[in-house]
Amino acid sequence: MSCWVPVPEGSDFTLENLPYGVFEPRRGGGGHGPRVGVAIGDQVLDLAAMWAGTPLGADLATGSLNRFLRRGPREWAYVRAEVRRMLETDERRLFCERNLYRLDEVALRLPIEVADYVDFYASEAHAANLGRIFRPETPEPLLPNWKHLPVGYHGRAGTVVPSGTPVRRPAGQRAAGDFGPTLRLDIEAEVGFVVGAPSALGEPVSTGAFAEHVFGVVLVNDWSARDLQRWEYQPLGPFLGKSFATSVSPWVVPLAALEAARVPVPVQEPEPLAYLAEKESWGLDLRLEVSLNGEVVSRPPYRDTYWSPAQMLAHTTVNGASLRTGDLYASGTVSGREPDQFGSLIELSWNGEWPLRLADGSERTFLQDGDTVTIRASAPGVGGGRIGFGEVSGTVVG
Amino acid sequence: MSCWVPVPEGSDFTLENLPYGVFEPRRGGGGHGPRVGVAIGDQVLDLAAMWAGTPLGADLATGSLNRFLRRGPREWAYVRAEVRRMLETDERRLFCERNLYRLDEVALRLPIEVADYVDFYASEAHAANLGRIFRPETPEPLLPNWKHLPVGYHGRAGTVVPSGTPVRRPAGQRAAGDFGPTLRLDIEAEVGFVVGAPSALGEPVSTGAFAEHVFGVVLVNDWSARDLQRWEYQPLGPFLGKSFATSVSPWVVPLAALEAARVPVPVQEPEPLAYLAEKESWGLDLRLEVSLNGEVVSRPPYRDTYWSPAQMLAHTTVNGASLRTGDLYASGTVSGREPDQFGSLIELSWNGEWPLRLADGSERTFLQDGDTVTIRASAPGVGGGRIGFGEVSGTVVG
Repeated sequence: MSCWVPVPEGSDFTLENLPYGVFEPRRGGGGHGPRVGVAIGDQVLDLAAMWAGTPLGADLATGSLNRFLRRGPREWAYVRAEVRRMLETDERRLFCERNLYRLDEVALRLPIEVADYVDFYASEAHAANLGRIFRPETPEPLLPNWKHLPVGYHGRAGTVVPSGTPVRRPAGQRAAGDFGPTLRLDIEAEVGFVVGAPSALGEPVSTGAFAEHVFGVVLVNDWSARDLQRWEYQPLGPFLGKSFATSVSPWVVPLAALEAARVPVPVQEPEPLAYLAEKESWGLDLRLEVSLNGEVVSRPPYRDTYWSPAQMLAHTTVNGASLRTGDLYASGTVSGREPDQFGSLIELSWNGEWPLRLADGSERTFLQDGDTVTIRASAPGVGGGRIGFGEVSGTVVG
Repeated sequence: MSCWVPVPEGSDFTLENLPYGVFEPRRGGGGHGPRVGVAIGDQVLDLAAMWAGTPLGADLATGSLNRFLRRGPREWAYVRAEVRRMLETDERRLFCERNLYRLDEVALRLPIEVADYVDFYASEAHAANLGRIFRPETPEPLLPNWKHLPVGYHGRAGTVVPSGTPVRRPAGQRAAGDFGPTLRLDIEAEVGFVVGAPSALGEPVSTGAFAEHVFGVVLVNDWSARDLQRWEYQPLGPFLGKSFATSVSPWVVPLAALEAARVPVPVQEPEPLAYLAEKESWGLDLRLEVSLNGEVVSRPPYRDTYWSPAQMLAHTTVNGASLRTGDLYASGTVSGREPDQFGSLIELSWNGEWPLRLADGSERTFLQDGDTVTIRASAPGVGGGRIGFGEVSGTVVG
């Protein structure tokens, strides 16, 4: 069977994808308030309506995916199979049609209530670029721990915002005694992983249990104020340089949609310790695309990322730290080896030395007020198809 | 009037204190499930019962203080005044008596649902001690940014646990290729601040607005694995070395109980930037006491802490980061200048060089399995009284 909902050529949201989000119709009709939906073509199917009157329906009739995610992987698989059946067969077609909304007639919310937010530093090209920029005198650009563990830190969960939220240029200390709006506002193009099923305190989650806990993938723009970050980060890491806003895409693409995108991680040398051994391949062939004011400025290849999301998760919990539904962890800036694959402006402009020249003739080192940054991505789907991630976008306001 | 509930001599929980917590009777009676209470003497008054049938009562009949805290400072003042009146007058005495529980007959829960957890590094003596330990070759023990801003970072909110929770010794990478249980398990005696009223994204909270947002104070033990931390922390700060457990005391002492404890912060030189200027004194004369297996090993004086909690809050939000109800931020290790005032074992044993000798003849550099660490504190109350904080305690399990 094929899908009876029209899916335009090149749409991000095919029957193989079926990503989850939280939406609200802009104008009345079909129930009230935000609820969980699945995107298909140019529309979104109201899952709360499809399961109305059941406990599952109640968990879907809320402002975040969390209650649905807490139900765990068997329920995720059940709902995905049912949605697919609804869209492929005529069994409930009339009822479905009444609960489909055009995407341009709904508002999309933050898909999850973020519990803890952790950001990694998992791209070797990115870490090496920053090493070359900040420690040009050192022949080895990576720090000694980098190939032994996925370096990561906790970010601010409360300032994770949905795509479209304006990003106010943060003020802060740019250096000793120097206070003002950041002069080095940057982006970081990242891939984020959403934890659905929690884990118990004291019980590490192995790399092999990754798909039992992680539900799906979002795109992340981890906005960064490089001057604030540089002055504050010793010895406890980034704080205000990152905590003002982290934007995420509204659609969570389930891992189940990414089977055809799975690839081995790059060769890891030295061999990771046992707890980091990748039992199955959870590298992912996601192709990112970063646009500045509508012009593509970079195409970072996530598949080159050194540490897999399963390794990051195993690392996060190896000390016994528990996972909660809604935990979000991100890859860190995704950069490839080539200059047109760098995922941040500090790399693209090489710390401001070589400004980017844009199509309108203007130049950029870091972001100006009014600039809009949009990150998109796609991955191979089954049978030559394409899985799209929608986008995460934000405009800088002064 | 005086309190008709008996308050034993030396009790932490006087009529001037009235701290808030979440409790559950161990055996039936008086309603079901966890609810908010106020400690008085050896008992706890069930606030959910006292306001039963009202919207406020519903907000008090839950497993955390958050819904009450979200109501804001006017409501905090109203409830505090009402509770005091209940305990001082006979108006509702009979009803109160039916809703008092002996503290030894209730279980205490984590008082708040933690939104974001931020830990600072605000004690000069502590930061200087760590500088001397780790950078003995450098004449100035503080890093260049330390006196310009309160250095802080985000910790893991999901592993904040209530006093009494056993702390499992974490495993992790102790150095390159060296995996195993931490050999340097430490404590950090800290003071924590609970945010009640949220703030809007993009709008900094001034030092003068501190008491409009912060509800009260808890004791914090930020357990630390020094070997894990040392290997992982460059360049993004502590992660697994801290994220396995952070214990907090069950009673939140409201700022309103600490008027007599307010003191100026130490002289700050260089003068802080305008946004960090302390408009009113929010230094606090809290006297901490750290016990190891029942023996007092240190008495850290919080009043010497360089950065005030109002300054820490202004710093956290100066970049526009918003506050949420349930945000918790802590001072970092509280250490005084004298060796018997250090708030961590890495300082007390000077990085393991000079073991502590305990009363039973044993020695400690870092913690052994079975060790119990308890932190208590008190502050001056009005009219020569004493405000107690209860305790935060935890036992290490292997």
